[in-house]
Amino acid sequence: MSKYRNRAPGPTEVPERVLQAMGRQVIHHRTPEFEAVFGEVRQGTKRLLGTTAEPIFLSCSGTGGMEAAVVNLLSPGDKVIVVQAGEFGKRWADMLLTFGMDVVLLPEPYGETVQPGILAAALIDNKNAKAVFCQHSETSTGVLHDIKSYAEITRATDALLVVDAVSSVGCAELLMDDWGIDVVVAGGQKGLMLPPGLGIVAFSERAWILSATSRLPKFYFDLSAELALQRKNQVRFTPAVSLIVGLNEALGMLFSEGWPGKVLQRHERLARATRAAVKALGLELFAKSNWSPAITSVVAPNAKGEAIVAGFAKYGMTIAGGQGPMKGNVFRLGHMGYTDEHDVIAMLGILERVLNDTRYHFRPGVAVAAAQWVFTEEQNT
Amino acid sequence: MSKYRNRAPGPTEVPERVLQAMGRQVIHHRTPEFEAVFGEVRQGTKRLLGTTAEPIFLSCSGTGGMEAAVVNLLSPGDKVIVVQAGEFGKRWADMLLTFGMDVVLLPEPYGETVQPGILAAALIDNKNAKAVFCQHSETSTGVLHDIKSYAEITRATDALLVVDAVSSVGCAELLMDDWGIDVVVAGGQKGLMLPPGLGIVAFSERAWILSATSRLPKFYFDLSAELALQRKNQVRFTPAVSLIVGLNEALGMLFSEGWPGKVLQRHERLARATRAAVKALGLELFAKSNWSPAITSVVAPNAKGEAIVAGFAKYGMTIAGGQGPMKGNVFRLGHMGYTDEHDVIAMLGILERVLNDTRYHFRPGVAVAAAQWVFTEEQNT
Repeated sequence: MSKYRNRAPGPTEVPERVLQAMGRQVIHHRTPEFEAVFGEVRQGTKRLLGTTAEPIFLSCSGTGGMEAAVVNLLSPGDKVIVVQAGEFGKRWADMLLTFGMDVVLLPEPYGETVQPGILAAALIDNKNAKAVFCQHSETSTGVLHDIKSYAEITRATDALLVVDAVSSVGCAELLMDDWGIDVVVAGGQKGLMLPPGLGIVAFSERAWILSATSRLPKFYFDLSAELALQRKNQVRFTPAVSLIVGLNEALGMLFSEGWPGKVLQRHERLARATRAAVKALGLELFAKSNWSPAITSVVAPNAKGEAIVAGFAKYGMTIAGGQGPMKGNVFRLGHMGYTDEHDVIAMLGILERVLNDTRYHFRPGVAVAAAQWVFTEEQNT
Repeated sequence: MSKYRNRAPGPTEVPERVLQAMGRQVIHHRTPEFEAVFGEVRQGTKRLLGTTAEPIFLSCSGTGGMEAAVVNLLSPGDKVIVVQAGEFGKRWADMLLTFGMDVVLLPEPYGETVQPGILAAALIDNKNAKAVFCQHSETSTGVLHDIKSYAEITRATDALLVVDAVSSVGCAELLMDDWGIDVVVAGGQKGLMLPPGLGIVAFSERAWILSATSRLPKFYFDLSAELALQRKNQVRFTPAVSLIVGLNEALGMLFSEGWPGKVLQRHERLARATRAAVKALGLELFAKSNWSPAITSVVAPNAKGEAIVAGFAKYGMTIAGGQGPMKGNVFRLGHMGYTDEHDVIAMLGILERVLNDTRYHFRPGVAVAAAQWVFTEEQNT
């Protein structure tokens, strides 16, 4: 018997309830039924992001949402600042260069974060910067950047803060309005527990004002044209109807569990247990601090990262290896979205089996026991 | 009891078999299982389009696929020719103007086609035109443009032929290589019977050569970067895994039924029966000739198009009204994708009931009887 389990840092496992909702016949998008669902999804997503801004739903992956932010805000030659301490930071930089921006990089070694003071200094040195681009959870390294501080610094300037929150939404605290974030980009296939294909972009008032001056051409990703329709529960182009229906279910699940408290506490707990297990095995966390609650990145012993990922696949589980320069040196354990404590125990059990297969020495059971201690102690207190 | 039926010209009804395949747990895209499915889908799509060109799969709607064609082929200021005899032709023109092209319009009244001779003359007058943009099935009017002739004319020049085949693929004969089409844009949510969210773009050798000179910025829709990975069954960004899995099922259904013969004959038959019914009711077809096998557009008596669409909804069926200037004057009956003869009979039965409700005078049963005659006579010969 072989049972498939997906603990990759996205796309993540989709709940049965969401699959079943999406398994019903597709309703046409120009019907009152769809418009009612879309209205609920719009409201739920505002609650999720902590904003009164209108989330715009796009048929695309998270990267499409990132591109929508760029082409709606900027004009060729604009100066922008990029927090780059991972492959997704690099993606912002590559994309911004492609669209002709003057990019100021704030690089840090992968596994580290960019200290807010560095950003503050960069904004003083680059007073004409139009925007700061960063990730919230940098999925490639497992670091959660301090967006709250970035926002506090940025909103005191003329620059906007654009946050790729694709892998943090639904997993980590993110208060768009309270913190003063200008643009949030989200995707459905991580903490929101959907099959891939839905991008979400929310613009603050400051962002809409800047977008009115943007001279980059846009058509498919024209957010102001979308806004005019979506606030009436309509869309310009055929939307990913099934994913909107699925998102309504997924939001219902998060709100029933208890949003934000219970959901965020669960992610924190799963991450803490995973880190405890990694340490108990004598392995090293790749992220030095600022650990993401969505994903834990581990230094692969003897650079056998790819063998470990392949080993997991033999036991029926998908996890992820290292991206870019981290390939081989890192493996990444996802604990976001539809993941509970027992899923993490199963994942750590497989990790032990895989490490044993690679002749890594440890006492069998230490990883699962360390995680059980975290779960049990927290329950008892 | 109320039963939902969708005969809109897209998104269309999704077969149970496809829904069930998509209702299984999402497999991660970096697994041998997904790569095997993707390989089958690539091969099947080539067969579907009649090409050896590599179809590129994108997470987007059909309009995203259109944009991918534009931003990969062209540079600002390029001269292009647009066949515009409907709202989707207008979409090409709007998009091309947005991206800075010098657009030569070949307009015809909606409901008509652009004669191949007009295109030939335009290509003589505009020898520096880089490409011709057109639809195959113009979904807004129900006209099937003569792409075979357009291709014959275009390939004798330096201009490329770019065909939006979103609503014709799987419904009408389309032989990309034999006819000499340079770019085909397709979408999943019409003849391919999928929920919306999958765009497909295939480039000929000539198109790849032109794309090498393109100076429009592109990132999410960078087709040559996608090509390098997709021909190895990989993708740059998280793909719409569920839709790829669903497409594999849908292609299997088309090939089992008999592709292209049986599938195309079915669409022709459904369209013929629908037209016979419309005439039997004393109504006027909106398209004067070159009727699409995917959709039939009907002039609404007394411009009550919107009331007719609303009437269909009361009986549980989604059809479409007129787009743009045709709003109110037209209603559109879809018979593409997962639609059989008895679906068409049910649709025509509802049409009769709706017309009766609007006090339009006719003899009950004439529409369904006319369609039954078409189906029965064809079976008997």
